[in-house]
Amino acid sequence: MHSYQEMDSVELKAELVALKARFDEIIGLKLSLDMTRGKPCKEQLDLARDMLAILKPGDVFSEDGSDCRNYGVPLGIKEVREFFARMLGTTAGHVIAGNNSSLNLMFDTLMRSLVFGEIESERPWLKEEKLKWLCPVPGYDRHFLVTQTLGFELIPVPLNENGPDMELVEKLVAEDASIKGMWCMPLYSNPDGFIYSPEVCRRLASMKTAAADFRILWDNAYVVHHLYDDQRGSLPDILALCEEEGHPNRVYEFASTSKVTLAGSGISCIAANKDNFERTKKYLSVQTIGPDKINELRHIRYIPDEMALQEVMRRQASLIRPKFDATLSILASELDGTGIAKWNKPLGGYFVSLHVYPGTARKVVALAKEAGVALTPAGATYPYGKDPQDANIRIAPTFPGIEDVKKAISVLCVCAKIAAVEKRLEEM
Amino acid sequence: MHSYQEMDSVELKAELVALKARFDEIIGLKLSLDMTRGKPCKEQLDLARDMLAILKPGDVFSEDGSDCRNYGVPLGIKEVREFFARMLGTTAGHVIAGNNSSLNLMFDTLMRSLVFGEIESERPWLKEEKLKWLCPVPGYDRHFLVTQTLGFELIPVPLNENGPDMELVEKLVAEDASIKGMWCMPLYSNPDGFIYSPEVCRRLASMKTAAADFRILWDNAYVVHHLYDDQRGSLPDILALCEEEGHPNRVYEFASTSKVTLAGSGISCIAANKDNFERTKKYLSVQTIGPDKINELRHIRYIPDEMALQEVMRRQASLIRPKFDATLSILASELDGTGIAKWNKPLGGYFVSLHVYPGTARKVVALAKEAGVALTPAGATYPYGKDPQDANIRIAPTFPGIEDVKKAISVLCVCAKIAAVEKRLEEM
Repeated sequence: MHSYQEMDSVELKAELVALKARFDEIIGLKLSLDMTRGKPCKEQLDLARDMLAILKPGDVFSEDGSDCRNYGVPLGIKEVREFFARMLGTTAGHVIAGNNSSLNLMFDTLMRSLVFGEIESERPWLKEEKLKWLCPVPGYDRHFLVTQTLGFELIPVPLNENGPDMELVEKLVAEDASIKGMWCMPLYSNPDGFIYSPEVCRRLASMKTAAADFRILWDNAYVVHHLYDDQRGSLPDILALCEEEGHPNRVYEFASTSKVTLAGSGISCIAANKDNFERTKKYLSVQTIGPDKINELRHIRYIPDEMALQEVMRRQASLIRPKFDATLSILASELDGTGIAKWNKPLGGYFVSLHVYPGTARKVVALAKEAGVALTPAGATYPYGKDPQDANIRIAPTFPGIEDVKKAISVLCVCAKIAAVEKRLEEM
Repeated sequence: MHSYQEMDSVELKAELVALKARFDEIIGLKLSLDMTRGKPCKEQLDLARDMLAILKPGDVFSEDGSDCRNYGVPLGIKEVREFFARMLGTTAGHVIAGNNSSLNLMFDTLMRSLVFGEIESERPWLKEEKLKWLCPVPGYDRHFLVTQTLGFELIPVPLNENGPDMELVEKLVAEDASIKGMWCMPLYSNPDGFIYSPEVCRRLASMKTAAADFRILWDNAYVVHHLYDDQRGSLPDILALCEEEGHPNRVYEFASTSKVTLAGSGISCIAANKDNFERTKKYLSVQTIGPDKINELRHIRYIPDEMALQEVMRRQASLIRPKFDATLSILASELDGTGIAKWNKPLGGYFVSLHVYPGTARKVVALAKEAGVALTPAGATYPYGKDPQDANIRIAPTFPGIEDVKKAISVLCVCAKIAAVEKRLEEM
């Protein structure tokens, strides 16, 4: 493949004619494909088929003898807290179990910050004149929407292969006391699949912040979501690291089984060091009668130990890996050498992040739509939906069948090339 | 039984000797009974035994074809919204379904008021100098704890047989703009079992409030929890009434299946008129990926229609009615005519509220504890745990077996009489 960067206008125009012919062919196929959201596919959900009816009559007691059907046990049953502790590499004493949405736990954590403040706060955050929040980009749209909705000004910071640009992060948080915290998706980041390096983790734990009550929401959503058994990403235990570095209250960590068992009916957790834990527990005990312990029990019966978890995740990976491989293979065959796009090969998580020719992402998504392929809106991976480069497109290959993934990615590549060629021609 | 009010000191002293002898006998029994919380008993939870494994493999789709295992459907599946709409006498368009804790929905509703304000608010409630909340008393301790924790000053208003003292309520809310709202448990109030009259409901819907953004949290927890099939309490549709009276945004209504199916694993809902509904939906859609739709489906399979619900509730009532009847019968035989106690015969709900001789409730609870019977702390039914009369004791007869209920109520009566006689003697 010739680099589009090196073609002259005559070559580009010839290429455009060829691409448009392909595009017209695609239109003729009248496709209707949806690649918008990182949802598990039917076959993944089917894996947990046995979990739905796993509790036989009478199997309603937790290890400590509590009747899981009744009120009580506000932090979740012990074995579920241990399950999440194993998953996160921490101890059950740091873990509070929640219901089916870890996003809900994150939202509620920030609502508590706004209404009650954090341990070191002089006042509830809502009573501060200005609130800002760091957002590594590209990132997860629903994270950004939470902090936007809660009134924070969102400050993008570049996310690189080893994590956020720490020079910039350290500078910003040291200078500006209105920066109250930061989103982190440290393993297989959404959408790039980046893994925070141990050094970045340590710098996040140790950095000096102007805000005494600075918090990191550490969304460890993909902690066990490896695509390749022999190439597993991993992280240090961020809670221990924060303790070590003298900022024990810096991090709230989150995880869930949404992509382990059932996306809409999983269980979730919040993990925190002692003082944050006690504070969270205090308010949660007023807020709710506790999590659904019967669903907790279902999860423990279905995934009783580490080996069972590994097996479940291997099966999950075996269903989605071919879709990732097909995506990457088509991207390579269509775009390698064109010089107009780049992407990361993720080792886990739910997305492939495609960086198309700057200034064309919106155009590419619009062309794909015309061709019957729905993609996540361009810009979605940036605060306020504004990608300053207009370059990033999040590919969510898990939900459609593999043949649809292949078709959709081919269409996407054709659209990316058309938009790039047109842009190059404009620029000449 | 002679009235203690009419006995002279000699008679009272003789009575005390007899009562103390009974008390010593009770001590000898070394009882250990727990009447503290309104929890369903094991047999009630067993009623929903079939629900746990009711979903056969493949039975995971809602009526509209959504895969309930996956993300999506943030307001809950249509048939669950219809289920709650039937229960509350409203329409599905007013209903948003939640997870297992309606208390959580109430807490979150107030958190939203604090952070975002309500439709008519000039600013988020947290930015007001002073926040007050009306609490009909006696009432539900967990309601009071929510508003206390969220920074409201709790204003008690007397709850009478037909509902809150409306003269007082109307006066307070008309005068004081810092009174932002009010708890209501309109059917079978906790603990007295009172039913708000249609007139009280209309006055609540129509009253003028100094706060333009005044809200009532209408906890319709016992809407289908009748004890006697032929004596059912009922309420007008408060949402319709508020519309009619020109205050469509006044009420958020709540209900759950915690005492229909499983206390810890039920489903819940919030119901509201159009503008409140849209506002709640907007924030909920940012907060969470939605409720656990698989648990919703389980509920719908177990209770597919109104007839099934009636049957479930008849079975529930048949298990707890004997405990209420035993409680009332012992109260009558021990205390009728003594002139030192009164109580209501509830037609539904989970409690019997005993009003002992003023100034003795703490003493009675302490004596009962000495005798091996744990009761809800005296004062719990009042804001800040302070019963100005020190008279109210909440009896929760559902959880223990009926023989234990009988023993516990007998002990309670002996303790109530001892405390009353001692108090009378002191007063002489």
